[in-house]
Amino acid sequence: MNKQIVLAKRPVGWPDESCFRLEQCPEPACGPQDVVVEAVWLSLDPYLRGRMNEGPSYAPGFALDRPMVSRVVGRVLESQNARFRKGDWVWGFLPWALRCLTPRGEGLTLIDPSLGKPSLAISALGMPGLTAWVGAIELGNPAPGDTVFISSAAGAVGQLAGQFAKRAGARVVGSVGSDDKVAYVLERCGFDAAFNYKTRSVDEALAELCPKGIDVYFDNVGGSTLEAALRHANIMARFPVCGMISAYNETEDRGIRGLQALLSKRIQMTGFIIYDHIHKLPAYQARVAPWFRDGEMHFHEDIVQGLEQAPTALIGMMKGEAIGKRLVQVAAE
Amino acid sequence: MNKQIVLAKRPVGWPDESCFRLEQCPEPACGPQDVVVEAVWLSLDPYLRGRMNEGPSYAPGFALDRPMVSRVVGRVLESQNARFRKGDWVWGFLPWALRCLTPRGEGLTLIDPSLGKPSLAISALGMPGLTAWVGAIELGNPAPGDTVFISSAAGAVGQLAGQFAKRAGARVVGSVGSDDKVAYVLERCGFDAAFNYKTRSVDEALAELCPKGIDVYFDNVGGSTLEAALRHANIMARFPVCGMISAYNETEDRGIRGLQALLSKRIQMTGFIIYDHIHKLPAYQARVAPWFRDGEMHFHEDIVQGLEQAPTALIGMMKGEAIGKRLVQVAAE
Repeated sequence: MNKQIVLAKRPVGWPDESCFRLEQCPEPACGPQDVVVEAVWLSLDPYLRGRMNEGPSYAPGFALDRPMVSRVVGRVLESQNARFRKGDWVWGFLPWALRCLTPRGEGLTLIDPSLGKPSLAISALGMPGLTAWVGAIELGNPAPGDTVFISSAAGAVGQLAGQFAKRAGARVVGSVGSDDKVAYVLERCGFDAAFNYKTRSVDEALAELCPKGIDVYFDNVGGSTLEAALRHANIMARFPVCGMISAYNETEDRGIRGLQALLSKRIQMTGFIIYDHIHKLPAYQARVAPWFRDGEMHFHEDIVQGLEQAPTALIGMMKGEAIGKRLVQVAAE
Repeated sequence: MNKQIVLAKRPVGWPDESCFRLEQCPEPACGPQDVVVEAVWLSLDPYLRGRMNEGPSYAPGFALDRPMVSRVVGRVLESQNARFRKGDWVWGFLPWALRCLTPRGEGLTLIDPSLGKPSLAISALGMPGLTAWVGAIELGNPAPGDTVFISSAAGAVGQLAGQFAKRAGARVVGSVGSDDKVAYVLERCGFDAAFNYKTRSVDEALAELCPKGIDVYFDNVGGSTLEAALRHANIMARFPVCGMISAYNETEDRGIRGLQALLSKRIQMTGFIIYDHIHKLPAYQARVAPWFRDGEMHFHEDIVQGLEQAPTALIGMMKGEAIGKRLVQVAAE
């Protein structure tokens, strides 16, 4: 029997399990030109929080009582479309369901198996990877010897942003939310320094770990970490702004203090959304796939088993419990 | 007898006249290689407020009981330096005094009289002009049909920023602090629309006057005007940040709310300080001097007479009473 996860109610502040509902749903019926996909991997991403609200974020909001949607990697179960064959690996923005219909195969992208395992299409070789590249390299533009500070450094994007900046010759410092994550980014991702912001003042940590100041701040969180980065920024620093997760679950906006540093230090802050850069994906994949294949870069997937666990896994990711990219495995690979 | 204006005490919040003292001082004695300058025009600029504080702003702080310093246009009274002759017009960062010594002529720049009247060297053809150009054109990068919103639009920089953006084909909207200034920017500077933020909600005014949203916000003030501009910004908007005068006299930083718009709208905010661009001044002057000479652009100087009036004139400018560029005339031209 097919199953799906729907948005049962809109959260105010932090979402909890009651915002979601697991329900049975019809099996997809494949018509002319259609493709039926069996979901294998669901991507859990911070931006999904915004889509659970009523108003539009940068993506349209989810409808109540309709399935949650995110990037999903799956296998073609049935195809009446010449672009896809049974057994092909594909990814697309698909509902959180065991099996789904994609009318005329629209929005599905074939995955090239030569680039690596299929889940990479929604992780290191997909949007999180390209996000890290655009922010850390294209907007951050680190020079050898620059100091790059990354928040949510053990997250899907942060772990890669740091490794890309290292390859550019920068000193890389990360803030993370647990001692395990400190160990992860130091030992597996090769960061030069990292600290647990839950047990240490960000200001003190930056003073110690970024003795030459910050040239690039890759912002995933906003809030008081952004304020501290403004205080420790060097002249002409670049602040690519990829996320402000600290604000997503706030019901009140407390404002960012110390923004005058933008002026006194000539800082450039650039908000970016990866959809604007999607045309760069093939070139990105061709450039970095060998680095993963050859073990020059590390990418951790934090895997939760079972469609029914997706809501709890999403809430947990927002609260910072995942290391690396969190995926839900819905079916055997 | 020579006279000067010194910083008598550091202001907390808004400065008042007691922060300054007019006092007699020695006549400059011209040694080998030295130049004595008679001040004619003193420039009053918003950034001077920051230099009255203890800590460094982007320029070093003024010392207590030492003269105020700003850009000054003057005449060479006496020169033992081969680069300058008696009667030459020069400008430099000079003390607020009737006459001053510049050891070895350092920091003095000759003014080319063919470019226009001497005071232009510290106004439309000097830093305020180049500031308007870099912010409105280089960082703002307005396309024909874009909407450019400018705060402090009747100020030294704002009045030019708007006219430059008009020449680039943009629709230009200004916020100002009086009805006289509304009339000024509409009738003399050719803005498409303007409003008095003291008598009208900025949000309402932007909704009416920028019906297609804001593509470029030239920020001179920060604070709630910046917050409103973030709300009305279009996707991919550019926010050159030239000043945050609303914060300069605040003793508490209330923070900027709604900065998440940077992300959802992919806004680029760039703080800039004109000293980083000073190498562009000759090319800027060559480009725009004909526009002023031929009457294609308008530039208003708000002139206050007498060195002793400089403190009151500076305080008044910070409170928004000047239209255009405020200068203090210290001697006959």
